[in-house]
Amino acid sequence: MTTQATLARLRDYMMGPTRFMNLLSCFELGIIDRLRENPGMTAAELADAVGAKTDAVEQLLNLVVHEDFVGYDEETGGYSLAALGALPEADIERVLAFMDLVKVTCLRQLYYLTDSVRTGTVVGLKELYGYEGTLFGAVAEHKDLRESWGRAMDAETAQIDPWFFDNIDIPAGSQVLDLAGNTGLGAIDTYKLKGSPGLRVTTFDLPQKEEECLENFRANGVAEHCSFIGGDVFESVPKGFDVVLVKHFLALWDKDKVFAIFTNVNKALEAGGQVELLVPLYPEHNKDSSDPRSVDFYPAFFLGCAQAQGGGQKLSAYRALLEETGFEITKVTVKDPADTPPDAFPVHAIISARKVAHL
Amino acid sequence: MTTQATLARLRDYMMGPTRFMNLLSCFELGIIDRLRENPGMTAAELADAVGAKTDAVEQLLNLVVHEDFVGYDEETGGYSLAALGALPEADIERVLAFMDLVKVTCLRQLYYLTDSVRTGTVVGLKELYGYEGTLFGAVAEHKDLRESWGRAMDAETAQIDPWFFDNIDIPAGSQVLDLAGNTGLGAIDTYKLKGSPGLRVTTFDLPQKEEECLENFRANGVAEHCSFIGGDVFESVPKGFDVVLVKHFLALWDKDKVFAIFTNVNKALEAGGQVELLVPLYPEHNKDSSDPRSVDFYPAFFLGCAQAQGGGQKLSAYRALLEETGFEITKVTVKDPADTPPDAFPVHAIISARKVAHL
Repeated sequence: MTTQATLARLRDYMMGPTRFMNLLSCFELGIIDRLRENPGMTAAELADAVGAKTDAVEQLLNLVVHEDFVGYDEETGGYSLAALGALPEADIERVLAFMDLVKVTCLRQLYYLTDSVRTGTVVGLKELYGYEGTLFGAVAEHKDLRESWGRAMDAETAQIDPWFFDNIDIPAGSQVLDLAGNTGLGAIDTYKLKGSPGLRVTTFDLPQKEEECLENFRANGVAEHCSFIGGDVFESVPKGFDVVLVKHFLALWDKDKVFAIFTNVNKALEAGGQVELLVPLYPEHNKDSSDPRSVDFYPAFFLGCAQAQGGGQKLSAYRALLEETGFEITKVTVKDPADTPPDAFPVHAIISARKVAHL
Repeated sequence: MTTQATLARLRDYMMGPTRFMNLLSCFELGIIDRLRENPGMTAAELADAVGAKTDAVEQLLNLVVHEDFVGYDEETGGYSLAALGALPEADIERVLAFMDLVKVTCLRQLYYLTDSVRTGTVVGLKELYGYEGTLFGAVAEHKDLRESWGRAMDAETAQIDPWFFDNIDIPAGSQVLDLAGNTGLGAIDTYKLKGSPGLRVTTFDLPQKEEECLENFRANGVAEHCSFIGGDVFESVPKGFDVVLVKHFLALWDKDKVFAIFTNVNKALEAGGQVELLVPLYPEHNKDSSDPRSVDFYPAFFLGCAQAQGGGQKLSAYRALLEETGFEITKVTVKDPADTPPDAFPVHAIISARKVAHL
């Protein structure tokens, strides 16, 4: 990279926050929706419609016109949607859910990233919300965090879970444990998508999740086939299961904690027992041609906004951790970038492994 | 733009905040400095040196390695500076000054951009600092804002002011007014760089700047040639000057205020009187090939972080405002992108005009 190219790239980084909010503000103010309904509105008409000054609307539109997200007619002074107008509504909805996630759970919190790394605590949650703990605890107490997080997670789950269940084998009649299964949605999906005679799915999570989880099982008509066990994965994992699912959980933890999780899963399984890990995968090599889409979000998000630890890993790191804890990888399924919306944050992979040694 | 390309570009926008702070945090933690001193350090060695966990250091380095800012040797597990190592120290200093400006004066404040646009006040300063007013007032009360702002402005001035004075003509013996000249540095530069027998420079700003301004004149040995007039440009501009400089000021204001400034300057000048405006210039057309570097920072910065109004303008807008207030443009000098560091935020221009009509 030439010095000039490096400096230009650094500028790109510097402009990240202002670019992000300029675009999002055009949506939040309602400018984009107005232009969808009434192409050709002038800045003054838009300003009147959204309750802002004409100058401010003009200012914010400069960037989106430059990007060709919105078009501008110099003759009439009218704006209309360009690239944004061509996006299907479902795409816009998904993108806005994630933009809101970035705004609400990251933008201000990231200011404290360095402090969070130094202290191993999410300093941004403490400073902004007076909350000591992780984002996953804070969502229970703070509506804005909860709504933004929930909306984005629903969009993420809708995109990832069907693919996950399409790409794992669960032998008929298996006893399945959904590790850190929260309030049962993974278990319900497992039963609905991979059900077979005798198949039983158990959600394993902290005891306080039990009531809501069982209610979810009843509401979804799977109470006969699903159950709940309360406990702490860092103490022990219940025995008697053939398959252990670990979805959206390993990335929350530093490697010593992942090691502890794998160790406890090993202790709970018989030899040959199966694990299916859903993880964000980082590119292996400096110049890996694989999709780098996980590394510009997850490290800063987990360290500065969510847990003050964790993040995705390279496959080599997951492999080493599994081998050290008595597993061998049997299959790695990386989500095809062609089947992943280009706006998606991470690249997901399923790592399938089986227990080969007792610890 | 295809739907896929639009979504990928939107992802780029979404990743802006996390990418920005991930990179800056590598500097703030001291990781980059350690690698400059000791190439080849492992994540564990770096972690030990900077007081962070190894996992966290590894996580943050993923992105900068992917960007080739930093290199990684898989054999040794050692990191060393790649593109960042090739940057001259002065470039790094300037980039870090602006990254700090973005972090301290923008990152958290931008969360409130939409509210700031709706209310016409800088909501972020109120929410984060309890300050009601603009960034330029807040810097007087808040050390973190003042230091970050001052450092970036010093870097900006060092880059722009010499170019400004190289590109304006000030006839020998002129009486020069530096409009909104703050505490006199522009006047001092004017005298030092454009001095001639009989040349006199007057700083015009709010009366409370007088004492510090006169002290600066004395300290710089120009007290004989420079003076101060206190007043408010929106009320009237002092008469008796041949040349009026307006540097780094017009972008603070919406167009009605710029109109008012030009009107008062017109009233103060004789016919033929000269104005020299230093402004950030926005691209004229949708597809203008001119440098778009001003529009991804200034709109969001001025609206959400600084003034809740203002921003740069297209040349056509400045021209219209000048013509409506009795001026004609005599020359437009745009800073050559080849002479502008690639990391610079705005593209500056000097608009030279002269008074052609009495209002």
